[in-house]
Amino acid sequence: MTANNNDTVAAPAPQEPVTQATLKTTSLPTSSSPQHPLGPLSPSEIIASSDLARSAWPENVQLYFKVVTLREPAKKELVPYLTKERAGESPLPSIDRRAFVVYTLKGTHSLHEAVVNLTTGKVESNVRLGPFVHPNADGDEIVAVEKFALSCPEILNEVEKLKLPEGTELVIDPWIYGADGLKTDKFYDDVRLYQCYIYMRDPANSSEADSCHYAFPLPISPVIDPSTMTLVRIDVLPTGLDEKVDGLKPYVARPANEYIPEAHTMRSGLKPLRVTQPEGASFTVESFSDMGRTIKWQKWDFKVGFNQREGCVLYDVHYDNKPLFYRLSLSDMSIPYADPRNPFHRKSAFDLGDVGAGLMANNLELGCDCLGSIYYLSAVLSGADGKPVEMPNVVCIHEQDSGILWKHTNYRTNRAVVVRNRELVLQTIITVANYEYILAYVFNLAGDFTYEVRATGILSTQPVDLDLTTTPHPYGTVVHPGVLAAYHQHFFSLRVDPMIGGQGNTIVYDEAHPIPRDDKLNPHGVGYTVSKTEISTSGGFDLDPSKNRVFKITNPSVRNKVNNLPVAYKVMVPPMQYLLADKDSFHYKRAEFADRSIYVTQYRDYDELFAGGKYTNQSRGGTGVRSWADRKDDLSESKDPVLWVNFALNHIVRTEDFPVMPAEMLRVMFRPANFFEKNPALDVPSSKQEFNCSVGLNGDKGFEKGFQGLRVGGPGGSGCCVTGQ
Amino acid sequence: MTANNNDTVAAPAPQEPVTQATLKTTSLPTSSSPQHPLGPLSPSEIIASSDLARSAWPENVQLYFKVVTLREPAKKELVPYLTKERAGESPLPSIDRRAFVVYTLKGTHSLHEAVVNLTTGKVESNVRLGPFVHPNADGDEIVAVEKFALSCPEILNEVEKLKLPEGTELVIDPWIYGADGLKTDKFYDDVRLYQCYIYMRDPANSSEADSCHYAFPLPISPVIDPSTMTLVRIDVLPTGLDEKVDGLKPYVARPANEYIPEAHTMRSGLKPLRVTQPEGASFTVESFSDMGRTIKWQKWDFKVGFNQREGCVLYDVHYDNKPLFYRLSLSDMSIPYADPRNPFHRKSAFDLGDVGAGLMANNLELGCDCLGSIYYLSAVLSGADGKPVEMPNVVCIHEQDSGILWKHTNYRTNRAVVVRNRELVLQTIITVANYEYILAYVFNLAGDFTYEVRATGILSTQPVDLDLTTTPHPYGTVVHPGVLAAYHQHFFSLRVDPMIGGQGNTIVYDEAHPIPRDDKLNPHGVGYTVSKTEISTSGGFDLDPSKNRVFKITNPSVRNKVNNLPVAYKVMVPPMQYLLADKDSFHYKRAEFADRSIYVTQYRDYDELFAGGKYTNQSRGGTGVRSWADRKDDLSESKDPVLWVNFALNHIVRTEDFPVMPAEMLRVMFRPANFFEKNPALDVPSSKQEFNCSVGLNGDKGFEKGFQGLRVGGPGGSGCCVTGQ
Repeated sequence: MTANNNDTVAAPAPQEPVTQATLKTTSLPTSSSPQHPLGPLSPSEIIASSDLARSAWPENVQLYFKVVTLREPAKKELVPYLTKERAGESPLPSIDRRAFVVYTLKGTHSLHEAVVNLTTGKVESNVRLGPFVHPNADGDEIVAVEKFALSCPEILNEVEKLKLPEGTELVIDPWIYGADGLKTDKFYDDVRLYQCYIYMRDPANSSEADSCHYAFPLPISPVIDPSTMTLVRIDVLPTGLDEKVDGLKPYVARPANEYIPEAHTMRSGLKPLRVTQPEGASFTVESFSDMGRTIKWQKWDFKVGFNQREGCVLYDVHYDNKPLFYRLSLSDMSIPYADPRNPFHRKSAFDLGDVGAGLMANNLELGCDCLGSIYYLSAVLSGADGKPVEMPNVVCIHEQDSGILWKHTNYRTNRAVVVRNRELVLQTIITVANYEYILAYVFNLAGDFTYEVRATGILSTQPVDLDLTTTPHPYGTVVHPGVLAAYHQHFFSLRVDPMIGGQGNTIVYDEAHPIPRDDKLNPHGVGYTVSKTEISTSGGFDLDPSKNRVFKITNPSVRNKVNNLPVAYKVMVPPMQYLLADKDSFHYKRAEFADRSIYVTQYRDYDELFAGGKYTNQSRGGTGVRSWADRKDDLSESKDPVLWVNFALNHIVRTEDFPVMPAEMLRVMFRPANFFEKNPALDVPSSKQEFNCSVGLNGDKGFEKGFQGLRVGGPGGSGCCVTGQ
Repeated sequence: MTANNNDTVAAPAPQEPVTQATLKTTSLPTSSSPQHPLGPLSPSEIIASSDLARSAWPENVQLYFKVVTLREPAKKELVPYLTKERAGESPLPSIDRRAFVVYTLKGTHSLHEAVVNLTTGKVESNVRLGPFVHPNADGDEIVAVEKFALSCPEILNEVEKLKLPEGTELVIDPWIYGADGLKTDKFYDDVRLYQCYIYMRDPANSSEADSCHYAFPLPISPVIDPSTMTLVRIDVLPTGLDEKVDGLKPYVARPANEYIPEAHTMRSGLKPLRVTQPEGASFTVESFSDMGRTIKWQKWDFKVGFNQREGCVLYDVHYDNKPLFYRLSLSDMSIPYADPRNPFHRKSAFDLGDVGAGLMANNLELGCDCLGSIYYLSAVLSGADGKPVEMPNVVCIHEQDSGILWKHTNYRTNRAVVVRNRELVLQTIITVANYEYILAYVFNLAGDFTYEVRATGILSTQPVDLDLTTTPHPYGTVVHPGVLAAYHQHFFSLRVDPMIGGQGNTIVYDEAHPIPRDDKLNPHGVGYTVSKTEISTSGGFDLDPSKNRVFKITNPSVRNKVNNLPVAYKVMVPPMQYLLADKDSFHYKRAEFADRSIYVTQYRDYDELFAGGKYTNQSRGGTGVRSWADRKDDLSESKDPVLWVNFALNHIVRTEDFPVMPAEMLRVMFRPANFFEKNPALDVPSSKQEFNCSVGLNGDKGFEKGFQGLRVGGPGGSGCCVTGQ
């Protein structure tokens, strides 16, 4: 900073004490008070739910709990409740609290699902599922499978043949088995299994527990039954260009490829960039139940829940007290791989259904995952024993600047009015073994809502012959000597239960079409207009950028006062390549959301929340959104559509994606379209230097004139309210 | 901030004086030293250039200068120069400095272009252009046309018929005339003209010079010849649903719709969010000539130029000393409108060619247009008199955080490594009468380059009958009582002259294709692979998301060491709806970049910089990128392709876009694809609280437990190095 700019000193922020609730640091919160119908299960409710399920069995039967979660109320119960609640009316209707419980009988494949009523203390249903229905994996089980594999003599015997260097540390990645319908005399794929991929740490640095083992894939892949904890068989992986499997050959040394910083000489010169919010954050967090939170920010308000399957879920989303979304969540993912060779042909992960976005959520750390003033939400899920499991800091909430929202300069007066955009972000990061997804709900000042996915983490790799590193591989990219990263697609399905302007919505799509030439109406061939198509029957729909096809959620009974158009939100979806696996494949049958960009279904209570179906693990299809859409429900009467927005990446791998990949970002945006009568951000205060306190780096405050060789980089420059910065 | 977090105090930044060149505050810089071949014309060179052009004419002939700009050297001269310069070799080759000058003979339509050699002091060419060739508009001329219209008795006589309220203030928006080829006995459109649209300020607030006159469009549209400053005719606008034009009727009162903040009650609660860079910015700015700047940031380095037509241009872009781009610029825009009725059928603006992105660049203001530590570049363009015109602060340079770049958590050790992304932004904002474009070059830490456009500002509006505000209009949206905003498309063409890994590039596209079922190779129908198609002949190309078609710039002679693939950058382009005007229309003929997403042409010196052709004003086509591509040049020999990336918005207007529109964003991204041998951002230091100094808003530092009703919002929370913030 130059001396003459030192006269302005930042006032210290007022030191107000923060209102804080009493913290219970040694035990989980328990409340016997009735919970809000949308509140995630409280710890005591989780215990009560698993106890109820257990009570349906003789005492000597041991249950292994997979899911203990809130069963959300039926819409016809909940809508009046939420309406009254928002209006401040009382008493509120009474709605029974229910839990949905999935469990197996320990040590067996016997799978059951129960609905328990916490209000009445009754088990309302309890059924055995199957065949071809399997529960999700969970952390305990995955760790147990790894441990088993590392001590299984048959597996170690095979590994022995590779003649790995002294002191080698093996690492096992247990993968979801997938499905191919194969039935032999010895085996049928209706047994829940793990396909394990074996790696090792850098043999030259075996003691480094964070060595990137994905740089050392081994060609042995055991299949393990997690319920009986037994070895089913050992697959040997093809490592050439075709399906042939050679015998196991001795390991040949190759280099490491580490992502941990101590393995690299760090670049220099990247100076700190900090976000400061001297008056605090602009949002508030309140509890609507023991575990449910209400967020309010700049006319937005919504309820936040969290569950094992979807992670962070939003309910009752309003802007300026106008209803927009009844429920929002990421409902499913599918990641099918391109390699058709055994056992890779089954490689297709449904991370939400097969494991759970909630279950895999990172414990986010201050100063690492966001900048600025950050509030963390924690959650409570359930363990295999049916007891509560603390999930600390699984959602971080912060604001971020997002550049210019609108600007206009009147060139006649030279007056510029500029308004910056601010976003509120609710972020969850999940780790799925090798891979990470950064999932965020983003709100802004102009009534836009965005769902953002960033895909990062480490590629799932497989061995490839060292002498093939100079030949293009048909199914993937050689990202390191001896390492193939197969091509794969990532499909995401966002479930949108809308209430644009209230319940009673209709999904439509608009297209722009040329007007035919006509001497009177279009004599110069330049005219075009917009057509509107109402979706009156459930089904699947394609994007079409060539027609500027735009899907909109409209409310025909609420009209824009300026132009009488039905109020609407438009959906801006990135186009994707649909599933490449053919229609007879299990990948296709299972990923019911990977063949159309848009599905519209008729809302049904309880069982239609997840695009791939309730049970995706080794699933066989017929239980997801494609099947529901195929009912051809009439949407024109009920006007209660659910919109499924599907989007994807086809990950044609680059060497740059290894050993850890720079995030690939996808965004789905919901924008008001004749919902407001004018720009809803006209009342956002203009962007001013007094508020933003930017720092000018030019020597003089304004015009850069004929300087030569000025170097910027040291502290300096002009800023209205910056001290020593 | 809670008291127990007060013990850490931010160290005041060291007070080093900034090295500053002597500033000449009273005169423009002039240098007689030879300029770098890529340096924008210095003020003295501008004067010398216009003097040289003038010297070709008798003294009594007055010239009106439209463009005086650098004529960039031929590639065969410049490439060796830049190569030697980078290698630090000397002496550097001598290259003559040349200027390109466009002028008219004052008061006439006689248009000329000259090339003058500043090194030899010679006029190398000087030719008269036309027919059907017209120069750009300029600020002086536009203001003169407005002034003429406001005092023209015939126009005022027509306005009189509207019986506007007492004290009405008229405002004229002179529009580029466009082209329709119409020839009548009185008139032929090969005369350069303005089509003026007339508005008025809010009659209830006529003294407010920043009243949004676009809320009060009037149905009278005079056509003016700017060279002779004469009225050609007065058009009356159709205001119904069809082409019929009624007689002028008296004005009926309607409400205003203002964007200026004093017209609104501002929302509250949006608290300051500031970007502080206590150690300064991470980039450096150096001069490579009087007006040219070299930017260096995190392994990136490039030269920045600025001209009347394209605004900010980048040259010789390298990452880690590896060549990437020879030249980058936004080369053209076209904004055709949907309304086929006279005179709107001609409405199609080519803002760069018709006026100039450089000419319209905003004088950016500290603390308004960016956050953080900002360096401003200024430029010098030329005026109608051929003299230099100062353009202060036309480019702002700053860094911004861009979320998580990569993250991985090893679930076995629970160690998370997370690296944040940082971006360097070079931003220019242009005001084109009613409208604004925010144009930015964005670089990041992983070798990605992005070109970003945000479209904002005010819609060009037209009158519509008040009683039609409840009927959907075929050509646009009623955004306010009596105000129609016609649908329109925005086409942008980014010109990319690549040198990925050095000169000698080839453009290819990849597609992902299913492998046919085959008992041996693909028995389960899941396999897919990638095909590669080389573009060996110049032409136009389409995107195809259904095939995951990805265009890449490759260098076949430079191979990735890991997998032997040619080094490449892929181009990520948003799909667009092509031009809706038909192929016989003038809109189509003129916008040669609006019918394909990709054009690839053979590089030619000097005249193939602008996708719509050198002279777009009232152009007739045949002079732009479609025509050059149609030469079917063989690209396989020369390997010197130019890539034209075309992208667009179809603006189906919303009420939310008025009276000023929230920005619509488009991004074109260039990502390394097997260019580096591994993730190029492995050496970016991890994201740490010590560095980022975020503030935790939860009462305790970690786990949020069972709190009830905690309100966040006041200053508070935990942060490692934050005082009072």
